[in-house]
Amino acid sequence: MVRSGITAFNGKVIGKALFIQNPPTINPDCKRSETESESLQKVSQAIDCISKDMVRKIDRYGKLDDSMKLDIVNMQKTMLTDQVFFENIQNTINEGYSAEASVHRCVEAQCAMLEELGDAYLAERVEDFRDVGNRLICQILGKNYPDLSILEEDVILVGENIPPSLLADGDERHIKGMLMTKGSKTAHVCILAANMGIPSLVGCMDVEGLKDKEILFLNATEGKAIYNLSDSEIFQAEKEVEKYQKMIEKMSIYKGKPAETKDGVRIQLLVNIMDAGSVEKIFEVGADGVGLFRTEFLYMNNKKLPTEMEQFSIYRSVAEKLAPMPVTIRTMDIGGDKEVESLHLAKEENPFLGYRAIRICLNQTEIFKQQLRAILRASAYGKIQIMFPMISCMEELEQAQEILEDAKTELLAEGIEFDQGILTGMMVEVPSVAIMAERFIEKVDFFSIGSNDLTQYTLAVDRQNEKISGLYDYFHPAVLNLIRNSIEACIRAGKPCSLCGEMAADIQAVPILLGLGLRKFSVNPSLVLAVKQVLANSSVDEVKQLAIKACETNSAEDVRKLIKTKSGDGCYGDN
Amino acid sequence: MVRSGITAFNGKVIGKALFIQNPPTINPDCKRSETESESLQKVSQAIDCISKDMVRKIDRYGKLDDSMKLDIVNMQKTMLTDQVFFENIQNTINEGYSAEASVHRCVEAQCAMLEELGDAYLAERVEDFRDVGNRLICQILGKNYPDLSILEEDVILVGENIPPSLLADGDERHIKGMLMTKGSKTAHVCILAANMGIPSLVGCMDVEGLKDKEILFLNATEGKAIYNLSDSEIFQAEKEVEKYQKMIEKMSIYKGKPAETKDGVRIQLLVNIMDAGSVEKIFEVGADGVGLFRTEFLYMNNKKLPTEMEQFSIYRSVAEKLAPMPVTIRTMDIGGDKEVESLHLAKEENPFLGYRAIRICLNQTEIFKQQLRAILRASAYGKIQIMFPMISCMEELEQAQEILEDAKTELLAEGIEFDQGILTGMMVEVPSVAIMAERFIEKVDFFSIGSNDLTQYTLAVDRQNEKISGLYDYFHPAVLNLIRNSIEACIRAGKPCSLCGEMAADIQAVPILLGLGLRKFSVNPSLVLAVKQVLANSSVDEVKQLAIKACETNSAEDVRKLIKTKSGDGCYGDN
Repeated sequence: MVRSGITAFNGKVIGKALFIQNPPTINPDCKRSETESESLQKVSQAIDCISKDMVRKIDRYGKLDDSMKLDIVNMQKTMLTDQVFFENIQNTINEGYSAEASVHRCVEAQCAMLEELGDAYLAERVEDFRDVGNRLICQILGKNYPDLSILEEDVILVGENIPPSLLADGDERHIKGMLMTKGSKTAHVCILAANMGIPSLVGCMDVEGLKDKEILFLNATEGKAIYNLSDSEIFQAEKEVEKYQKMIEKMSIYKGKPAETKDGVRIQLLVNIMDAGSVEKIFEVGADGVGLFRTEFLYMNNKKLPTEMEQFSIYRSVAEKLAPMPVTIRTMDIGGDKEVESLHLAKEENPFLGYRAIRICLNQTEIFKQQLRAILRASAYGKIQIMFPMISCMEELEQAQEILEDAKTELLAEGIEFDQGILTGMMVEVPSVAIMAERFIEKVDFFSIGSNDLTQYTLAVDRQNEKISGLYDYFHPAVLNLIRNSIEACIRAGKPCSLCGEMAADIQAVPILLGLGLRKFSVNPSLVLAVKQVLANSSVDEVKQLAIKACETNSAEDVRKLIKTKSGDGCYGDN
Repeated sequence: MVRSGITAFNGKVIGKALFIQNPPTINPDCKRSETESESLQKVSQAIDCISKDMVRKIDRYGKLDDSMKLDIVNMQKTMLTDQVFFENIQNTINEGYSAEASVHRCVEAQCAMLEELGDAYLAERVEDFRDVGNRLICQILGKNYPDLSILEEDVILVGENIPPSLLADGDERHIKGMLMTKGSKTAHVCILAANMGIPSLVGCMDVEGLKDKEILFLNATEGKAIYNLSDSEIFQAEKEVEKYQKMIEKMSIYKGKPAETKDGVRIQLLVNIMDAGSVEKIFEVGADGVGLFRTEFLYMNNKKLPTEMEQFSIYRSVAEKLAPMPVTIRTMDIGGDKEVESLHLAKEENPFLGYRAIRICLNQTEIFKQQLRAILRASAYGKIQIMFPMISCMEELEQAQEILEDAKTELLAEGIEFDQGILTGMMVEVPSVAIMAERFIEKVDFFSIGSNDLTQYTLAVDRQNEKISGLYDYFHPAVLNLIRNSIEACIRAGKPCSLCGEMAADIQAVPILLGLGLRKFSVNPSLVLAVKQVLANSSVDEVKQLAIKACETNSAEDVRKLIKTKSGDGCYGDN
């Protein structure tokens, strides 16, 4: 049986299917057979017990510096111990419902409310909230909540919607893959799986006939789940996984090597990170520093704004660990599509074209200056660069730079050290800036092209919108021309240009970017080796012509054809 | 007293303030003192009476071919006579509430629901629905609902939110202006006022001290309402209105004249329309045809899709009346931000970057082909051109053209006449197309630049979002460069290029567009004369340099400075 799904994280693995059962079904109308106070006590004991377990996890994840897992458990603890949530349960018990029915009713009411708002971000929080509710119900009913923290053999998790907390706490040695029949690529649990390097498939709607503990071949790279395998098929699958592993191992020869093209051009290969926990991976894969340090997560899932000290200590820790490698910190890039309690952002009709990133910072300048101060202070401890997101016009850049100057002046006056030669750059992600690249590069030290957003705006396509995401294509020659214009402006100005969108790690796109003159790529740590490999198989001379031709085609399809012809020549990567 | 507001439609007028009172306040908890059936009878009699009045209006507006007024009353009639609405009222009466309280409760419940959805379009329907409810309540209570259909003197309507139905039915000879303390520019009533040529100001929050029947000077052009006037101030205001009128009259000398620059270059000056009712105005102001016929309104406010025959008869009527002048019909340009019942569009996270316009048409090809067939058939009766909106890549254009060819083949096979040489063009409103203008113009007969959307995408700004609308600026040099690229591609290809955004009627922008080589402008009928005047005061030679310099500046502000310097030379328009 072969079933298709949506790849959430690449990879090929084989293992026993481990079914994650749906949580117990609760009859919401079930009345209690005990007194009010007995029911209430059950609930508060359960909350107490789970909350203690969460505290232990917070401690453990904290020590591991794993901010993503930490975020999840912190958020869930906030949900669990929310006073209003408890009062709602209490009121429902008072109405005569049983402890578990009361919890169920309160969780569902809250989830329905969140889902009704039609906001993708909030809808995904529903997942976390249900997880908390289910854990609570299991505890009340004395049922076991699945525990994946110690596993005996290699498994692939299979379930409708796997709770993020379960994966966060899972045994990383044995969880080889994840297969969800529902869910979306952007679900919390998928981002976590990608972070943990676990190949995952979602939306694989129908896995009829798949049995618990059956051998399952998960080919996430090709979006397939294969089961009901004969012995010879298992043998075949194992060979394929082995081949894939070898390819990965083959890539591992690049761990110690610098990124370099076939004809010996040294390329700066940087990584995109969003927390201090990813720093180890940079050493592991041998990258040249951080091309994009996302700081959004400091602002999300938090009731309060992060203080200057909190930020400083995180930035400093990353800068120190990586010195003398560069760390490019992007200032807050948040918008109306994300829930940031402390910023009180209103829901917008078109958040991607709305009040976000630098637009918020230039309006709420105190928050912005605080972040800049924290970054500047950290710059005394390593090689930090500052990067402004979402610039669309010259005035914004000038204002941002003024506030940065203010922050510097303040620190000087306060006698606080910082790197006075700190480099300041900007993202090229709004078409207007790419069009006028030559003007903007005069005012900054470097560019970083944000190809994801640039593509979205240039083609007027929200890539998260399933109805039209097919139109999102960074191979569109218009996008390539804007990238070319930005790179060439930098080359003429003698200033560095990097690219930090998904395109930088697309093995088909890398040669074209190289051909357009890009010499700095910033990618997800898990993709560094693959990019090194493509680079090692590309020669600058050969790809230059390819890139120019690509810019002169009529469509993304033409570009792909061109790449296909070219790759037949074997001029780059073979995976 | 001078108060500021947001200009909804330009003009300077003086007249007596006519207060439109807020509807009667209803106590929602008021119980009925009569029997259920008595209350119910009151409601159904009131519905009956108002509905008859609406039928009369439908007949009258139909004869006037005034599709906008027709739309409003049709929609309100649908709301009023909705069976579910009536049943809700009936149930509420059964619960013991009075007739008027029941109506009030049902209307408010429905409005709250619509408002909660956070959708701008639906929120504006609330206005219409409340209007229906208030009319019904007045009828039940035997109170007079304001009637503006016959007025004795010149008035300026003043109110919190003026119901669109009231204005639709108002005495056009005497309603000189409109001042709302709440409301938005995009409210239904404002669009209607603009259509009727009534200067209007909205969001003029505080008009304390303004008395009913007091003389009010509404300077909508400058966004001001001035009252508590002394005699000499009234005299001054009258002089200013007179001066403004003279300027308008002065412009009226252009009525019979073709659009032409000072140095004798003939310009095609076309109009944007959205229904057959605007055709008379084209003759009145002496335009050269229709540059943009919006067809969205055929699809909106309608439970069913418009049939081929319905569409055909509207397109034919416009083409016949205007022949041999050209009529450029843009195919359906609708998206997830508009409520179109018959298309079942889902609410989207970023509708401007979503499933809209040609993207819907290429997915629901039957609807598209039906429209194309209607347009083609109408082309036998005048000079029609077809225009595709929202094209972002070559494949879309090719698909649209294939479907057009299918439609032609069908009509040929059916022996139905159409203009076999019909010209087909496309909107340039997605940055990718403007960037690759040279490629796209090879495939079509003409371009029309949609500067509003082009600006929004190029700058990543939703101009309807108040928090950031200040960033929306078509003078941004990046936008100017994309426009330049599009115009120059057309010039090189020897094909016509027009521009149909608001920019085409901005007296500061017209000389720049002219300088960039634009020779076709498409504007709101009410702005044709002003544009003729600016053109008559501009000479091509002089503006060419200005345009080139504007493209080479750093910012929109620089462009404005340049224009200011230049206009000091008196090289264009003096209003």
